[in-house]
Amino acid sequence: MTSHMDHSAVTVLGLGPMGRALAGAFLDAGLRVTVWNRTPGKDRDLVARGAAGARSPEEAVAASGLTVVCVVNYDAVDAVVRRDAVAEALKGRTVVNLTADTPDRARDAAAWAADHGIGYLDGAIMTPTPTIGTPAGVFLHSGPGELYAQHRPVLGALGGTHTHLGADIGRAAAYDIALLDIFWTAMAGYAHALAVARAEGIGARELAPFANGIAAILPPLFESGAQDADNGTYSGAGNPLTSAVSSMAHIVHTSESHGIDASVMRAAECLARRAIGRGHGAGGFLRIAEIMSPR
Amino acid sequence: MTSHMDHSAVTVLGLGPMGRALAGAFLDAGLRVTVWNRTPGKDRDLVARGAAGARSPEEAVAASGLTVVCVVNYDAVDAVVRRDAVAEALKGRTVVNLTADTPDRARDAAAWAADHGIGYLDGAIMTPTPTIGTPAGVFLHSGPGELYAQHRPVLGALGGTHTHLGADIGRAAAYDIALLDIFWTAMAGYAHALAVARAEGIGARELAPFANGIAAILPPLFESGAQDADNGTYSGAGNPLTSAVSSMAHIVHTSESHGIDASVMRAAECLARRAIGRGHGAGGFLRIAEIMSPR
Ligand SMILES: NC(=O)c1ccc[n+]([C@@H]2O[C@H](COP(=O)([O-])OP(=O)(O)OC[C@H]3O[C@@H](n4cnc5c(N)ncnc54)[C@H](OP(=O)(O)O)[C@@H]3O)[C@@H](O)[C@H]2O)c1
Ligand SMILES: NC(=O)c1ccc[n+]([C@@H]2O[C@H](COP(=O)([O-])OP(=O)(O)OC[C@H]3O[C@@H](n4cnc5c(N)ncnc54)[C@H](OP(=O)(O)O)[C@@H]3O)[C@@H](O)[C@H]2O)c1
Repeated sequence: MTSHMDHSAVTVLGLGPMGRALAGAFLDAGLRVTVWNRTPGKDRDLVARGAAGARSPEEAVAASGLTVVCVVNYDAVDAVVRRDAVAEALKGRTVVNLTADTPDRARDAAAWAADHGIGYLDGAIMTPTPTIGTPAGVFLHSGPGELYAQHRPVLGALGGTHTHLGADIGRAAAYDIALLDIFWTAMAGYAHALAVARAEGIGARELAPFANGIAAILPPLFESGAQDADNGTYSGAGNPLTSAVSSMAHIVHTSESHGIDASVMRAAECLARRAIGRGHGAGGFLRIAEIMSPR
Repeated sequence: MTSHMDHSAVTVLGLGPMGRALAGAFLDAGLRVTVWNRTPGKDRDLVARGAAGARSPEEAVAASGLTVVCVVNYDAVDAVVRRDAVAEALKGRTVVNLTADTPDRARDAAAWAADHGIGYLDGAIMTPTPTIGTPAGVFLHSGPGELYAQHRPVLGALGGTHTHLGADIGRAAAYDIALLDIFWTAMAGYAHALAVARAEGIGARELAPFANGIAAILPPLFESGAQDADNGTYSGAGNPLTSAVSSMAHIVHTSESHGIDASVMRAAECLARRAIGRGHGAGGFLRIAEIMSPR
């Protein structure tokens, strides 16, 4: 247990695409890295690069003062970590859980850790695997400020920007949920656009530069929309909801004329039409954030 | 009719936010601009800046060789343009229709124009009103190449990049549909994220910088996804569909635990689960483009 203030050692539990990227970045930074994964064999490349492959999670966590967990969700985290031998080995050490799940689950994990004398930080990774170890990585953290400060040097080996969102342990997961909401919805829109484009004889690679143009117009609209949302005023001066809904109807129509499922756009259009029905037709599109919320 | 090769005059029909932006950019470029809108009074600022306010669409189109139409949809275009007096006045002149609608409607409009001896180009505007007259504007055009070349100088007064997508008149509308699909779906995701964030005590302005980070990770994923889509191979090496669906379930759960409508994400999750059900769990998310398409 003397190793737990050793900032040159780190354990990674979970070697999916993201766990492997994290462990690889730690290795590149010259740390002593111990790895473990439920299904054996995924540590092969990492071990070849100098990582120690542990035979069990308890052996893995005992090797370092800091353990980073990154598996599919908190059910998987629990399956790995909430076992007597692992809890015992983690006592007095710290877990940084970079697995995505809900704020509730983060709070529950923190309570379990506290009960077992384990330091606990919760985090979220907001960028894809190729960004890990580069300046493009984005990491969110929440939990006790002192604990975060203590392990910040090791986390820094992952590169990118790290933001501590405060002591409320659920905060990183709450941001993660909201941000993945934007991400997966946008990706669903892109998938649908690819399907419709193909039906119209447009190749995905022909569309891509213009799709990137759409991504480029989002930030200023996100910024102005954030002000609208915080103020509860949704200006339609530049683009009224009635105009949006007209475009959405064209998309649904064209999609369905090709036999392509338009359920995602139909659901969005339905929210927009409800907003218009409540008298917000001249207002801005983001008014639908109010329509979907309970009163 | 001698004016129709006069590249210093242009008429704008439709003075919503976009029509006003277009007319304003033409004025700024020093063109002779004539404007008309169904509801009177919307030309006030433009007339104060030097535009001629016409009393009817036929009077408006008679003033210039080139008429730009930008109203809510093609039903509105037809209501304005498909009248004997207007068709007569347009004979031998050119219409550039920058109204958004479906490829079918663009083809129908072109057929009508041909029947009436009217030159017809169809276009789409891919950026918001503040970009008009600036380098950030993005315009797509389709229709006869010679006609496009002839009017390109006047269109150039709108600033930005103009791409001629070819002679197939429906092409600009097809791109428009696919690109607005990405845009409105992403905006629906953002609206939902704002609602969930607020329920979690996160202000929209706190979320905005990270939301912009999400917009920033889309282009490389759009690029690699375009290659996947064109090749029919959807790699999940960096991020498998099973991982995506786990995140989507967390979003739905957190949303609904706050009483927030998650219908858009539910529809997307359903497509992802269908893809997994067909054996694509280890593959990439954009595989859902295949799932939503007819076989
Ligand atoms: N990939 C990305 O681009 C990305 C970006 C940001 C955040 N994230 C987040 O990072 C986390 C990990 O993602 P990932 O990309 O590495 O892939 P993933 O498919 O989400 O997770 C795979 C990992 O979870 C483990 N696992 C699943 N069920 C388990 C169980 N019941 N018991 C023990 N281990 C279990 C797998 O072990 P086996 O090998 O034994 O199946 C593997 O190590 C996720 O929460 C994800 O949302 C990923
Ligand atoms: N705003 C943007 O950011 C943006 C960006 C890209 C593309 N576009 C596209 O540009 C086009 C115009 O958009 P917009 O923003 O100016 O607002 P809009 O609300 O889509 O269109 C308003 C215009 O349509 C006219 N109109 C509606 N119904 C009509 C009818 N039956 N007969 C005659 N005119 C009718 C309105 O006249 P009244 O004043 O008489 O109602 C007004 O001139 C749309 O196709 C839109 O998709 C807009």
